[in-house]
Amino acid sequence: MPSSFRQIDPPQRLLMGPGPVNAHPRVLRAMSADLLGQFDPEFTAYMNEVMGLYRPIFGTENKWTFLIDGTARSAIEASLISLASPGDRVLVVNFGRFGLLLTEILARIGAEVRTVDAEWGKTVPMDEIAAAIADFEPKVVATVHGDTSTTMAQPLEGLGELCRQAGAYSYVDATATVGGMEIAADRWGVDIVTGGLQKCLGGPSGSAPITISDRAAEHIFARRHTELGIKRDDLEQGSGQRIGSNYFDLAMVMDYWSEKRLNHHTEATSMLYAARECACVSLEEGLAERFERHRLAGKAMTAGLRAMGLTVFGDDAHRMTNVTGVYIPETVEGERVRQRMRDDFEIEIGTSFGPLQGKIWRIGAMGYNAAKNKVLITLGALEAVLRTEGHSVPSGAAVDAALEAYTS
Amino acid sequence: MPSSFRQIDPPQRLLMGPGPVNAHPRVLRAMSADLLGQFDPEFTAYMNEVMGLYRPIFGTENKWTFLIDGTARSAIEASLISLASPGDRVLVVNFGRFGLLLTEILARIGAEVRTVDAEWGKTVPMDEIAAAIADFEPKVVATVHGDTSTTMAQPLEGLGELCRQAGAYSYVDATATVGGMEIAADRWGVDIVTGGLQKCLGGPSGSAPITISDRAAEHIFARRHTELGIKRDDLEQGSGQRIGSNYFDLAMVMDYWSEKRLNHHTEATSMLYAARECACVSLEEGLAERFERHRLAGKAMTAGLRAMGLTVFGDDAHRMTNVTGVYIPETVEGERVRQRMRDDFEIEIGTSFGPLQGKIWRIGAMGYNAAKNKVLITLGALEAVLRTEGHSVPSGAAVDAALEAYTS
Repeated sequence: MPSSFRQIDPPQRLLMGPGPVNAHPRVLRAMSADLLGQFDPEFTAYMNEVMGLYRPIFGTENKWTFLIDGTARSAIEASLISLASPGDRVLVVNFGRFGLLLTEILARIGAEVRTVDAEWGKTVPMDEIAAAIADFEPKVVATVHGDTSTTMAQPLEGLGELCRQAGAYSYVDATATVGGMEIAADRWGVDIVTGGLQKCLGGPSGSAPITISDRAAEHIFARRHTELGIKRDDLEQGSGQRIGSNYFDLAMVMDYWSEKRLNHHTEATSMLYAARECACVSLEEGLAERFERHRLAGKAMTAGLRAMGLTVFGDDAHRMTNVTGVYIPETVEGERVRQRMRDDFEIEIGTSFGPLQGKIWRIGAMGYNAAKNKVLITLGALEAVLRTEGHSVPSGAAVDAALEAYTS
Repeated sequence: MPSSFRQIDPPQRLLMGPGPVNAHPRVLRAMSADLLGQFDPEFTAYMNEVMGLYRPIFGTENKWTFLIDGTARSAIEASLISLASPGDRVLVVNFGRFGLLLTEILARIGAEVRTVDAEWGKTVPMDEIAAAIADFEPKVVATVHGDTSTTMAQPLEGLGELCRQAGAYSYVDATATVGGMEIAADRWGVDIVTGGLQKCLGGPSGSAPITISDRAAEHIFARRHTELGIKRDDLEQGSGQRIGSNYFDLAMVMDYWSEKRLNHHTEATSMLYAARECACVSLEEGLAERFERHRLAGKAMTAGLRAMGLTVFGDDAHRMTNVTGVYIPETVEGERVRQRMRDDFEIEIGTSFGPLQGKIWRIGAMGYNAAKNKVLITLGALEAVLRTEGHSVPSGAAVDAALEAYTS
């Protein structure tokens, strides 16, 4: 029998990189439930439950809280192209790889993009964002919350108010923080926030939660153009510019998630089950407890890395709690260390991109893996690998420091 | 405990509509395997296996055979916008709702679209397609294979040769037929074929297999623009017009599935496991055996419906084997019958769209549900419901005729 016919049998690996991470076992089991028709009342009831479950996770009362059927970046693209039309000015808060992704998506639809930048490892001060808004007068302001490429979390208090005063819509990519750090869509006053399951929510990639404010929804509905194949006289059409994508037309996706249930895509049933279970697990734990668990894991990881004599990357004041960047010592080869971590310990830690490629590792403790035992095991393994690779490390110091961080 | 926290527990319903249908239990189980890092060698090995498994399913030797992370229509949009640029002429073979979807997606990117049409219930003769190509000189010809909205399957023998002679690329949406009717990408000579898991492949919606010919891949790579966040001097850039979407930029998605493994999205791991299992189940059964199983189920369903005195919809010569349209008798209310089928028998049959809304039901027998027992049960239940609703039906005739179709 060719190997391609063998049963799925992945190694039991501990994924301590910047995501994807191991999913919660309840989430994996939920996906094995049988399918339903997409308009069956039991299925639309599950859709409505998902809307309700993700509101607290996004810190919002927004009616329009649902899922995009694709990976995290599908929701990013859907948001940006539904908010901005070709020629619109968009200001991007850019402090890492995913800020660059926002500029790239916007450039492809012909938006006029300006960035307000921080070097990799820092965030952008709110007064610089305010100055850029005043100068550029954008229609949309887009930012990443936590950019895993640099492990930095952009402060967002006050951003929404700043944008609304300037007549701009605001977008936040919270893929890497949702479920691990507080998302406060309403308090921040931002218009659209999107996420993904595969980081702090402890699920698989492939479904992207989104929340949309009423004012942004109204703006998007003004661009509504119902598909020819399901057009009826009683369906209202918008007067605004048609959105350049069918799949990512949030007006149509909202009509599908609304009481109208207008046919669009066929909802990805198993991924919806997964997204629902991710939310149940998170809310049953309690969001405050969950954020604290991530904070402690990050604190312990950082303490352990420092106790090994390693240098942690980036601005301490704005570090994401769920992923830590650490400089690769000059005495070792970064990729060899990662390979030994994987081959000898079945632990994955992350490499990096762009200006940081070959300079730092990124070590995550997210979702189901933001756990004391997993932080300790990872630090112990890294210590052993570094020693084997000829880099001298104080024996046992990392694990001791991490334990101390947990108890102090 | 609010109901939204209850365990996923869908009713055990038999889905005999136009899709989604019940998934094969092996597919549901495969999704509960633990996750891997997206660049872990074991995971990229699974990606390569998927490429190999889907080649026979698409009837092709195409290197570029992989998955798009979204529902079936995500692969449709990715194909059309990667093949056609704004202003390009595209001819759409239009014989139902999904032909209209192709025109809609193309109109949104500013392509110049012309259709060659058949009324709902018929297909388009190849000589009419040839005449339209000669007249319109399109850059791309796009068609649906089986359009579930009308239950018709468009004949495609010779389409590719016709297009190549005219210098056009060809695209086929095989969402509703792949795994149930023969897909012969190479023999048809077409450039891109896409599918979905939730119909004859017996999986959940949310992953869309695609195959791309070398010549189409070359055309698409000429539009390659590597993302800023991962740009390196050694990565070749294309000279063609940049594709208007990041998520659906097939040049970048192919670079991700290639030996280069250029980072794009985070592959939807559990859905990839599902797609792989769908292919394994199909190939282990044998494609010829599988097509015959669908053919027999469709033949029996049609025979049963006719034995009840009902009128089957559409052109007998070009019927899809896996879904049958049938006129709703004037003596009953279509939606009441569907509801009783669901409430009393836990069987779902399909409604319809556009010009056929309220006129026909669509009854599927696809993938795991293209089975003798399920066809017989559905016919028996429909007979009982029709009688209860006051429509006189010869007792037992439908099931007898279906059994006869299976044995004759």
